[in-house]
Formats: sequence, C-alpha cells, structure tokens
Amino acid sequence: MEGMQQLKDDYPWTNTPLVVGAPMRLIALADMAVEISKAGGLGFIGAGTDTSTLSSDLLAAAELFYDANIKTSNGVLPIGIGFINWGADLGTAVPLIEQFRPAAAWFFAPTSISSLCDWTNQTRKVSPQTKIWVQIGSVQEASKILLAARPDVFVVQGTDAGGHGLVRGASLTTLFPEVTDSVHRTCRQEGIPPPVLVAAGGIVEARGAAAAFALGASGIVLGTRLLASPEANVSNGYKSEILRVSDGGQSTVRTKVYDKLRGTTGWAGTHNARGVINQSYVDAMAGMDEENKKLYEEEIKKGEAGWGAAARMTTYAGTGVGLVKEIKPAGDIVREVREGSRLVLHRLSSSAIVGKL
Amino acid sequence: MEGMQQLKDDYPWTNTPLVVGAPMRLIALADMAVEISKAGGLGFIGAGTDTSTLSSDLLAAAELFYDANIKTSNGVLPIGIGFINWGADLGTAVPLIEQFRPAAAWFFAPTSISSLCDWTNQTRKVSPQTKIWVQIGSVQEASKILLAARPDVFVVQGTDAGGHGLVRGASLTTLFPEVTDSVHRTCRQEGIPPPVLVAAGGIVEARGAAAAFALGASGIVLGTRLLASPEANVSNGYKSEILRVSDGGQSTVRTKVYDKLRGTTGWAGTHNARGVINQSYVDAMAGMDEENKKLYEEEIKKGEAGWGAAARMTTYAGTGVGLVKEIKPAGDIVREVREGSRLVLHRLSSSAIVGKL
Repeated sequence: MEGMQQLKDDYPWTNTPLVVGAPMRLIALADMAVEISKAGGLGFIGAGTDTSTLSSDLLAAAELFYDANIKTSNGVLPIGIGFINWGADLGTAVPLIEQFRPAAAWFFAPTSISSLCDWTNQTRKVSPQTKIWVQIGSVQEASKILLAARPDVFVVQGTDAGGHGLVRGASLTTLFPEVTDSVHRTCRQEGIPPPVLVAAGGIVEARGAAAAFALGASGIVLGTRLLASPEANVSNGYKSEILRVSDGGQSTVRTKVYDKLRGTTGWAGTHNARGVINQSYVDAMAGMDEENKKLYEEEIKKGEAGWGAAARMTTYAGTGVGLVKEIKPAGDIVREVREGSRLVLHRLSSSAIVGKL
Repeated sequence: MEGMQQLKDDYPWTNTPLVVGAPMRLIALADMAVEISKAGGLGFIGAGTDTSTLSSDLLAAAELFYDANIKTSNGVLPIGIGFINWGADLGTAVPLIEQFRPAAAWFFAPTSISSLCDWTNQTRKVSPQTKIWVQIGSVQEASKILLAARPDVFVVQGTDAGGHGLVRGASLTTLFPEVTDSVHRTCRQEGIPPPVLVAAGGIVEARGAAAAFALGASGIVLGTRLLASPEANVSNGYKSEILRVSDGGQSTVRTKVYDKLRGTTGWAGTHNARGVINQSYVDAMAGMDEENKKLYEEEIKKGEAGWGAAARMTTYAGTGVGLVKEIKPAGDIVREVREGSRLVLHRLSSSAIVGKL
C-alpha cells in the first residue's frame, strides 16, 4: 500500500483510494479537471497533440481554483496536463509547465525514448514539483521506459480502454500484475524506489475500481465514465451514444478506421483506438474507402444527429460503455466510484471469503 | 455472496472461494480433474468436441476417487464434464452422464439455442443432480440463453482467455459487471432465482482471482495456469512454451490461423482462439497459405522440438501466460490461488482504503 500513501503525499488534497480523470484529448478541459480535483480526485486537462489552447485552459483552471481552498504541496496547480507526445509541441508546453506548475504531467506515445526523456527532463527542470506520469500498455514498454525516464507514476492501460492505446494487448487482469512484477523486480535489482502504478482501461464504476485495487493498483483512472458528465467537452450526440450503447465488448472495436476518416495521420502502427461501431466502421469493413471519408465529412454538418448506430460521427469509448447509464457531474462520479469501491472491498472483507482467515 | 453459498451447497467438498479447473479439450482429463476436486476445487474433464474417450476418462476418474473419501451430495461424481456442443455427440454423452452422474456439465458454443436446450433437458432428465454450466462471452449471449436454458451457472469468459471464445469481446473488468446487471435485472423481472456467475479468462494467480471476486464472481476458473502442471495432458514442449513466454498481451493473439492449420473446421465465424504467436502465425500474416499447413504438418513430426517462438506447434494460452513461471501440481495451484486470493482481499480490507469506512 506504499503507492497509495505516496499518492496521498504527492497530492495532499486527494482522498484514498485515488480516482484520476483521464486526459481525454480536448474533451477533458478545465471544467472537468477542476471538478475532479475538487472532489478529492486528480483531474487532468487533455492537451493531447494540440497545445494551442493549453494556455487559456490552464488560466481557466487556475481561476476556477481561486476560491476553492485546496491544499496543495509547494503551490502546484492541483491538476495535471496530459500530452500525446508524438504530436504535442515541447516548445509550447515547457513554458506553460513552468508558469502553471501542474501537479502532474502525463506522457503518452512519444516518437522515441529519447524524445520522452527530453519531455521528462525539461519538465523536471522547469517545475521540479510536477510529477511525471507515463502511460504504457505492455511489459516491454514499461521496461524500456523505467530506467530511461524514471517516471514517478506508470499508468498501466489495459486493452478495454476507449480511445488510443496499443493495437494488441491484455486487460488489466493480467497486464497489471505482470507489469508490477517486472517493474518491481527491476527496481529491486537497481536499488531504486519503484514508480507508483495506476490502472486505466475498462474502469467505469465501483466494481472495476475495486478489482483494480485487488490487482495491486494504487489509483485508478476513469475515462469513458466521465464522457457522460456535463463537464465533458463533447456534443450531446456523443453523450447520448455513450448512454445508448450496451454490451461493450461487442459494440466497440479497436481500429484505425476512425483516425483515417478524421484525417489523423500521426499515430504509429503500434497504436489504434477503441470506439463504438457505427456505419463508417461497417462500410470500411465492407471495403468503402474515399466515399466513406466523404460521407463522414458530410455527416459532420448534421451536428448531434451525426451520432448513432447508423450514423458516422466517431464515439471513442471503452468496453465499459455498457455500464454507463446516466449523465452525472464529474465530481459526483469521482465520489461514487471511490466510495463505492471501498464498499465493495468492505463487503468482501466481511464475507465468508476473507472473514475466516 | 449468495452465489458462493450456492456453490458450497452444490459441491459440498469444495472450499470457498471456489476454484474451478477449465475443461480444456483433451488436456484436462481424469488426473487433472480429480486432483483439482481433491484440493477443494471443482475439476472438469474436457471432452470438448470429442466424446470417443469420455467413457474411459470417467471410469479413470471414478477409480481415482475410490479411496478419496470426498463428501458429495446425492452421490455425484465430484467432477464435471465440459462439452463443446457444436462437435460433441449428444447420443454418446447422455448415457455417460446418466451412468456417472457428474457434479456439473459445462456447455459451450452450441450450434443453436434449441440444440443447447436439447443438451440441458436431456442432461437434467437422466441426471437431475448434475448442475448445468453454460459459458458465455457477451451480454447478448447471456440474455439469449438465460430464459431458454435456465442454467445453474453462467461461466462469463473474458477476452484474455486462452483457447476458444468470441472473436470480439471485453475483459472480465467490464464484461462481468455488465452481464451480472443484465442477468439479475431479467431474473428480478421474471421472478426467478439468478444463476450463479463464475469468472473465466485471464485468471492465473491470486491477484486476478481477488479481482474477479471484487467484480462479483462467485467462483473463478483457471485454464492457462493449469497447463503448467504435471497433470496437463500436453507435451513438455507445450509446457516449456508456457513458461518461456512473457508479456502476454503482446505474445498471444486471438486468431483462426491455428484452427485452420490444424484442420479444425467446425468453429463458427463468431469464435476464434487465443494462442502464443509463433512462426506459423507470422507466416500466415505474411500471406503464406497451403505451404504453411504443410510446414505445420512436418513440424508435428519433431515432437517437443516443434514448440517455440520460431517453431510451429500451437500453444493455446491466455494473456496471463506471462505470469506462469513454474510447473506445479494442479492441487497445489488450486490451493495457492484460493488462499492467495483471500490474503489479497484480507490485506486490502485491513488497509487504509477499507479500514476507515
């Protein structure tokens, strides 16, 4: 449980166990990040590949915190920033990190280990208080990054996650313990303290969170669940689709189709994204190519009507989408999952399984 | 926790929480099934699609139990039998079920719901003590089967599982809670008791088992972990491969390639299987077809040397394969996972997370 204590020390305004808001690109902005941290979680602004509005997002967050009376250490801004490193601009990001001193910087999908080290070194130089979070999806990724970048936190992302991640993967059930064992073994060998390990991918409510804690996670990340909140910067059509869809393993798929339609060409072959199956995907599987992109572009003009099973707008979501049944403020979601996960574990501990130990 | 109590009532020789041995086709035979049940679990013989040796396997099991002094209810044989229904022969199976009265019959991948109902009805008719287990991999499958077949147990299989399952899917993290909510809702509406829900797919050790219990599972199924036991009816080459492979999400893949090479043509388009990536898979992805099958058939002659990363024999395994590090008797594995999962939950319950409730 050292990792849980570390998180509490590093983010003293948070409650244990820590619930984190995923830095969903241009979806998790100041409103969402601030509400999550105000609820005792750790919110992230999802700058992603695009740092052009990051300055105004950070300013908005700082203003929202003005009266909040949140206890931080060393005067950091009590939220983090998430970057998709292959596309984000280091030259824009570093001065903003220096100016706003976020509690954490979350890095994902760098073009190389040396590029990742540029980001971590420059961040640490301008804002030593900012903790370095790095997202990984395999044991191999964790091994490569561990000694090179020495992250404070690894976000271990299972393949149930919505949006981008590794093409091939395992769920948290097996990935989290295997990464834990590998990382801890290396850290023992090197005589260094292990990074804190946080779980992401498929956690949308109390049971999934409790399961992640049983797997050894020190904190958990919510993504898909937060799409159904007033604070999510997505269309109402997108939110309705999140509520409509059930049977998440059947109704979502990992694919590069949506990146292609949207003209996002920067992702490496190693990554794709999980989204709800829609008409664009069905047509792409049937071999439609240029026409599919044209139809997608026409659909954009429809606004909210562009979402739905027979429609074409993209709904990135994880396999947990079927468990999301109502729109709720982000802060309430954080509290519900945190306290719910404690209740699940409490019930198990007072049951026959553990009681007779 | 009603499900856990139900399992204890139905299989009185078992310890809570229940650890089940997956009916791995022609791999889990009498030795494995009996050792698992002797260790307080529930072992299954994996007849799969082939009932030709089932009679002698059941006779062997009955003999192995002769001196075991196991407490059963109604004189059942304290193991189950697993069938892959599209290929198994009902006419052979039913008289054997009548003769040996197994504690459970596990059905998977029937050609239709009405065929599944034939199996369940005939089993119940000749052996009312035999509990009906049905394996599902989606909410839709569970919904279709629930009222038609009224199973005693649903085995909810997540996509981390080794061997056969649905082509598309979610892990237990999201699938298990979504199936639970759906099944319980229907049962409340219909005024019927819910089936017991058991988790399979990716559980290889204590942490994964504890996670499944946090998700609400009443029992857990081990498959891949049991491949590394003296009782597993596979070649030493297969077992070495299980120990060699790490980073399970990257080193295994769901595919139909291995079925094709092995000439197994009966699986529907809805199903494929997860196995370790080997040269056959690499060559198949590169477009090799007839030649690949020929090379596979030549490899069979090599015996144990036919297994390995650059070799061609099939190693069905789940993403948890990277967590399997030693060969151990099946009974010891069952005890280790059961007691280990209790310890994981006990530690969590005495930690700061739950303690302050």
